[in-house]
Formats: sequence, structure tokens, C-alpha cells
Amino acid sequence: MLKTVILPLSLLMLTLSVQASRIDQEPIKVIEPATGLNTAMVELGKNLWFDPRLSKSNAISCNSCHNLATGGVDNLPSSIGHQWTIGPINSPTVLNAEYNFVQFWNGRAKDLKAQASGPIDNPKEMAFTHQLAVETVASIPAYQTMFTKAFGSKDISIDKVAQAIAEFEKTLRTPNANFDLWLKGDDKALTAKQKAGYQLFKDIGCIACHSGPAVGGQMYQKMGLVKPYKTNNPDTGRAAITNNPSDKHFFKVPTLRNVELTYPYFHDGAIWSLQEAVEIMADVQLGRTLSKDESAKIVAFLQSLTGEQPKVTLPSLPPSTYKTPQPKL
Amino acid sequence: MLKTVILPLSLLMLTLSVQASRIDQEPIKVIEPATGLNTAMVELGKNLWFDPRLSKSNAISCNSCHNLATGGVDNLPSSIGHQWTIGPINSPTVLNAEYNFVQFWNGRAKDLKAQASGPIDNPKEMAFTHQLAVETVASIPAYQTMFTKAFGSKDISIDKVAQAIAEFEKTLRTPNANFDLWLKGDDKALTAKQKAGYQLFKDIGCIACHSGPAVGGQMYQKMGLVKPYKTNNPDTGRAAITNNPSDKHFFKVPTLRNVELTYPYFHDGAIWSLQEAVEIMADVQLGRTLSKDESAKIVAFLQSLTGEQPKVTLPSLPPSTYKTPQPKL
Ligand code: HEC
Ligand code: HEC
Ligand code: HEC
Ligand code: HEC
Ligand SMILES: [Ca+2]
Ligand SMILES: [Ca+2]
Repeated sequence: MLKTVILPLSLLMLTLSVQASRIDQEPIKVIEPATGLNTAMVELGKNLWFDPRLSKSNAISCNSCHNLATGGVDNLPSSIGHQWTIGPINSPTVLNAEYNFVQFWNGRAKDLKAQASGPIDNPKEMAFTHQLAVETVASIPAYQTMFTKAFGSKDISIDKVAQAIAEFEKTLRTPNANFDLWLKGDDKALTAKQKAGYQLFKDIGCIACHSGPAVGGQMYQKMGLVKPYKTNNPDTGRAAITNNPSDKHFFKVPTLRNVELTYPYFHDGAIWSLQEAVEIMADVQLGRTLSKDESAKIVAFLQSLTGEQPKVTLPSLPPSTYKTPQPKL
Repeated sequence: MLKTVILPLSLLMLTLSVQASRIDQEPIKVIEPATGLNTAMVELGKNLWFDPRLSKSNAISCNSCHNLATGGVDNLPSSIGHQWTIGPINSPTVLNAEYNFVQFWNGRAKDLKAQASGPIDNPKEMAFTHQLAVETVASIPAYQTMFTKAFGSKDISIDKVAQAIAEFEKTLRTPNANFDLWLKGDDKALTAKQKAGYQLFKDIGCIACHSGPAVGGQMYQKMGLVKPYKTNNPDTGRAAITNNPSDKHFFKVPTLRNVELTYPYFHDGAIWSLQEAVEIMADVQLGRTLSKDESAKIVAFLQSLTGEQPKVTLPSLPPSTYKTPQPKL
């Protein structure tokens, strides 16, 4: 009897110590579900997230380009905006975006709230004005109620719209990826191939840029560090913000969480195959040619970063009133 | 003690008899939640419903024009399709569409299944081909699994795609509208104004065309029966199908369930105000000029037809593979 009690206990302690050590020592950290959010603000933000009335045409919402059914992206090289305008750059995922040290490829917004009002009056995206967006929301009684619940007042401003959307975006984490289960001590959560891929990812230096809970999102780095990256996309990255020529082609290192869902890859959305993206990275960032076997192992590891997708129930958006501005196609 | 038992019982019997009589005698019938559906097929159909890869651009899904967050419509005069093509006619709601005796304004599809493959290869809508849509779905292993669960085989055809989407659409009923609670015997479910509006709706003859569970969807009728309806829309309605000049401007009578959400109104989507739509109907269909008070009462009644909106959790669509055709913008 004593034996059967002691054995599981010692196993448990072993597990706990593996767990503690991996969580402490690995450069990639676990993603936990969001907590401590303002639920009334999340609910309001979810309505705004899905509301196409924040766009001039009333046909484009945040979810059009960051579809929560497809990894928080649109799976297009670059997005389709107002009047089928093709945007200049690939749409990054909003999943786990809260972990980004800044928002946008070139970091021009400091956080989710600062980012969220941008697309609304971007002529290539939602093509509206902040004033009309606020008038639209304010014309709908049910929104006034939601704002009162979230902010204690029915006064509506673009700032509060952005804050509520940002609060909703904070719910968009993807916990319990197989990689996280492994980090927490479950040895069987990764296949041998995935473990080998992760080892390679660390050994050859990918981890220098892609680490932390989001496996990226923590710094700017040059695309084409050791060898130029060939692209037709004229974007200069960070240099457009700093006007410093040495920042040319520096982009925020993207998250690799859910990367198997967020094709096509890179800021130009030119690469459809994850294996090809991995081989390009090794080549242009590290000056290293990977064998097919090596890149396949890394891909297998990257697939272990796909977490539980947020379970989002579509809101029932409150109807417009005679005061609501009508769509302009 | 005896008294307290007998009183509720007799009240109950009174309620039951009101209930039975309203349900039997009123020309509008209760909407009940859908039952007996194939759940594996519903789940598959939901994925297809939200999958923009059924369109040439990979940017347009069924939900783009029949947004389940906005009453199953896009709230535009006419829909935006591939490359921002503005469609020829207003998008009808898919909520309760199963009750329609035929599908489309002119009835050219006999049921939901016959309808569902139409938009995919319509150049103004999803602009794809059925062959490419089937190739797309077949290239994705998780879809093969879903087809096997739903149909017992992983063979994929446009016919099965349509059947699965139709099965999902059958879930899109909106039960428990206040009007239905009243039909079932709850006297307080309608306000006095709504009851007066319903009485008017019956007395002046709206009910002749708008009846049954969907409050419409049971017949074709001429738009402009007693007086021409002025519109810039060239659609001839049923006549385009029958080539019979006497069918000119005959349309399927639309459902009035959730009509407060499905603005703008009529096949041309020209009328934004429900009160104005009601007044036009009285004028052109019945030769009758309503007072503002009368039309307001009817609007109040129509608002009691808004039911519980389907609670739809977004699917997590399975990722494409190297075999999946790429989007063409
Ligand atoms: C028409 C397409 C489109 C729409 C609509 C759109 N976005 Fe974006 N979004 C993009 C693109 C493209 C980028 C990248 C732009 C850049 O970095 O310069 C982006 C970037 C972002 C980022 C930064 C992510 C990162 O990793 O840097 C967030 C967060 C975001 N969008 C949220 C939103 C919200 C919230 C809305 C609605 C209010 C919205 N988007 C509407 C296309 C769109
Ligand atoms: C010196 C920094 C650096 C190193 C080292 C590095 N990366 Fe990257 N990685 C980046 C940057 C910056 C981008 C964004 C480039 C762009 O989009 O133009 C990126 C993008 C990616 C992408 C595409 C993500 C997306 O959503 O578009 C993948 C996949 C990727 N890296 C994997 C790797 C792998 C695997 C390695 C090692 C073989 C690696 N990276 C090494 C900085 C780095
Ligand atoms: C680009 C816009 C657009 C897209 C995409 C679209 N629809 Fe429609 N839908 C319409 C319009 C417009 C009509 C009315 C056409 C007519 O009656 O001639 C319609 C009609 C319908 C009807 C008939 C409803 C009624 O009351 O007669 C159903 C059902 C329907 N669509 C389902 C779907 C499904 C399923 C898909 C995806 C496979 C889809 N729609 C994609 C715009 C669209
Ligand atoms: C003779 C048949 C007939 C009668 C009577 C009739 N309707 Fe209609 N109703 C229709 C038809 C047909 C349409 C579609 C017309 C169109 O879209 O061009 C329609 C459309 C509507 C619409 C717009 C629905 C939508 O989603 O676009 C409303 C609202 C409506 N009717 C309410 C009423 C009311 C209220 C009355 C009585 C005052 C009434 N109807 C009487 C046949 C009728
Ligand atoms: Ca991408
Ligand atoms: Ca309509």
C-alpha cells in the first residue's frame, strides 16, 4: 500500500521539477488565457470589432482583414480595403497581438489602443472619418447602453471606441498549444520530430529574434540581415518612421504563434509555403542553407505553436436608426 | 388548501385554451427551433458558410452578404461582390429562409440546397467556378474528414457542398419573438400598441400576403398591385423566369420576421425607414393611405417579430495546403 502511494508522489515531484525548469529555462514562454479584463468593455469591443458600420461602405469591419475564423488574418498577400483597394502590406494576426512591444510592421502605434482607431480613417482600409464613426455609434441606443456599462457614461469618443476594441483584442490569446503543454511538463505533447525542430530553432539562432510568449513581437530586426531579401514591395519598414537610413528594412519581428494559419508570409505576403519561409529566414537572416529535412523539422516545431483559437460567438449588432449615417459605396 | 390548488389549475387551463386558440386561429404561426438535423452536416455547413475560399478572391463568404451579426443581410441597397461589383438586387435574409416556398426574389431556386451553389459561380458575387470550389475544399484534409462524418465518404461534390450549407441554414431560425410568446398565450408579451398594430395588419389586408410562420415567403405577388411602385431598378421579377408578361414585377413576398433588422427595404433596397416601407405597402398594394399613427402601430407590431438571433460560434477554418488554389484578386 505504501509503495503505491509513494510512487505516484515521486513521479509527480519529478514532473513538477521538469515543469518548473522548462518554464524557467526555455526562451519561449507559455501563453495563458487573459484574465482581469473589464467584461462589459470586452462585450462592447466585440460588437465594434464585428461592426461594418465603422467603415464608409458599411461593408468592412476589423474582422474582414483579421478574420477570427482564419487565425486573425485574411490569408491574402495584402488586404482588400474600401472599393477593392489592394493594401500595401500583409495583414498581421491579431491573435496574441497584446504581446507585441509595439503595433504595426514598422511600430508606429505604441499599443493596441493606439492602433485601433487607425484603420477606421485609413482611406485604403475602412475609409471613414473618426467623426462619422462616432456619430454612427452614438446614433444607436443599444450602443449608448453598452458604453454606459463599460465606461460609466454614454458619451462616445473615438478614444473610447479604440479602448473597447483593444480590450476585446486582449481576449484573443491562443493558450494550450502542444508546445505550451510540453513547456508545462507533458513530454508526450511534442513528437520527436518537433523536439528536434525546436532544438534546431535554438541551435542555429532563430531564437535570437523569435522568443518570449509570442515567439516574436519583442524587437525590430532587419529583413535581410546577412543577405538582401528580394521583394517587389517598396516598404522601407522602420525607416519610414525614424527617417534614419540605417533603419531601412527593419520590421517588427512577427509572432510565430499560429504561424501555420497566417500564410502568406513576410510583410510582402509573397511566400505561401511555411517551409519555404523557414528556408528563406535561415538564408537571409543567418546565412545558412537548410536541408529539406532540417526545414521540415522546424516546420513541425512551428506547427506545435498553434493554440486553441478563441471561441467567439457572433454578436447580434443593434440596428441603425434614422440618425445613423448611410453607407457610401 | 384546496382553493390554492384549484385556482392555479383553472388559470392554467384558461391559459392553455387561449394558447390553443391563438395558435390555431391566428394566420401567423409560431417559429420553433429546428430539430432533427444531421449535426455533422450542420458543422460542415457552418465551416463552408464562413469560408471565403469558396470565392475567387478568397475574401467573400456567404456571411459577407448574409451577415449573421446583422439579421442575415448586409444592410446595403444591393450587395458588394467580387472586385466591388455592385449587385442588381437587395440581399434577402437567410434567417428562417427554409420557410420560403421557393428561394430568390423571383423564385428561380426551388429550395435552400438548389440555391446554395448559385452564388459561388455568380460572377457578380463569389465569381468562382464549381470545379475550383470543389478542388479547394478537397485539397484540405480536415474538410475530407468533415465530409466523411457528414456523408459517409470523403468524395466531395458541389452538390454535397450545397446540401451541407443548406443543412446549416436550417438552423438559422429565430424563435421566441415577443409575437410568438403572445401566440403561445402570454398576454403581456405584446404592448397595447403592438396588439393594435397587429389588428390593423389583419383588418386592412396585409395578412393576405404576409402570413404563416415566416409572415411571408408563401407566394408570389405583384409589387404595385393597385398602383405602380416607382423604382430605378430594372428587375422584372418573376417574368424573367416565366417569360410571361403578366408576371412582370411579381416577386416572392418576403418574410417580415426580423424585419426591423433587414433594412433597406424592397427588392431595390431603396427604402431605409420601416415606417415608410409600411406606408408604401398600404399605398401600392392596398390603395390605402395610412395615418402616421396607424403606420407607427404597424411598425410596433412588426418589431415584435424580431426573434432570438442564432448564437453562432465562429468556426476555426482548417488551413489551406500547397494543393489549394490561390486567391485571384
Ligand atoms: C482593409 C484591411 C484591414 C482592416 C479593415 C483592418 N486592418 Fe488591422 N491591419 C491591416 C494591415 C494591412 C495591417 C498592417 C499594417 C502595417 O503594419 O503597416 C494591420 C495591422 C493591425 C494590427 C497590428 C498587428 C501587429 O502585429 O502589428 C492590429 C492590432 C490591427 N491591425 C487591428 C485592427 C483593428 C482593431 C481593426 C478595426 C478597427 C483593423 N485592424 C482593421 C489590415 C486591416
Ligand atoms: C535577425 C532576426 C531574425 C532571425 C535570426 C530570424 N528571424 Fe524570422 N523573422 C524576422 C523578421 C524581421 C521577420 C519579418 C520579415 C518580413 O516580414 O519582412 C521574420 C519573419 C519570419 C517568418 C514569417 C512570419 C510571418 O507571419 O510572416 C517566419 C516563419 C520566421 N521568421 C521563422 C524564422 C526561422 C525558422 C528562423 C531561423 C531559421 C528565423 N525566423 C530567424 C527576424 C528574424
Ligand atoms: C455578393 C453577395 C452575396 C453572396 C456572397 C451570397 N449571397 Fe445569397 N443572396 C444575395 C442576393 C443579392 C440575393 C437575392 C438574389 C435574387 O433574389 O435574385 C441572395 C439570395 C440568397 C438566398 C435566397 C433567400 C430568399 O429569401 O429568397 C439564400 C438562401 C442565399 N442567398 C444564401 C446564400 C449562400 C448559402 C451563400 C454562399 C454560398 C450566399 N448566399 C452568398 C447576395 C449574396
Ligand atoms: C398583394 C400582396 C401584398 C400585400 C397586400 C402587402 N404586401 Fe408587403 N410585400 C409584398 C411584396 C410582393 C413585397 C416585396 C416587394 C418588393 O420588394 O419589391 C412586400 C414587401 C414588404 C415589406 C418589405 C420587406 C423587405 O424585407 O424588404 C414590408 C415591410 C411589407 N411588405 C409590409 C407590408 C404591410 C405592413 C402591408 C399592409 C399595409 C403589406 N406589406 C401588404 C406583398 C404584399
Ligand atoms: Ca501573413
Ligand atoms: Ca432588405
